[in-house]
Amino acid sequence: MARQAHNEIDDVIHQKTRLAIMASLAGVKRLDFNELKAQLGLTDGNLSRHLSHLENAGYVKISKGFKGKKPRTTVAISAKGQRALAQYLQALQNIIDTANP
Amino acid sequence: MARQAHNEIDDVIHQKTRLAIMASLAGVKRLDFNELKAQLGLTDGNLSRHLSHLENAGYVKISKGFKGKKPRTTVAISAKGQRALAQYLQALQNIIDTANP
Repeated sequence: MARQAHNEIDDVIHQKTRLAIMASLAGVKRLDFNELKAQLGLTDGNLSRHLSHLENAGYVKISKGFKGKKPRTTVAISAKGQRALAQYLQALQNIIDTANP
Repeated sequence: MARQAHNEIDDVIHQKTRLAIMASLAGVKRLDFNELKAQLGLTDGNLSRHLSHLENAGYVKISKGFKGKKPRTTVAISAKGQRALAQYLQALQNIIDTANP
């Protein structure tokens, strides 16, 4: 059973940059786009592309607003995203357990 | 620091079918090709392709021989593969820890 745990891995989260984004958001719920970009060492384009993918899956919510006169984009993990991340981590844990019996 | 753990993820192992192969081999050291195929629910072609990738990285050793008159292929994890898997699992653990502080 645990041997087929790889079929339960969520491809949206498994991509390593998206996994890092989800992990970063899970701890704090909401982050500034620029802060997230700096934390993960990504370019604007790369982060935007991965966030779109996560947004399409309903895992994050992206809000555009202003801080004073400066545009500001914030990203938050959704309840669906929290659940998906928890399930993904469990699937990984099952694989790790197989490797370390 | 832990936030950039995604850069330490080994792409050869991160692909989920290859991760399942490595996890299966880690527990038992050596498996019959057909046994591995059945355990993971893969086709011949799919398993062969992923094993080639792992063999090129030096993570597994593939031996072709005979059992009686029947050809038999066995797959074993290498010492390098064991180390790579351990490092990969540690990188994942770092990401999981970020998500569950």
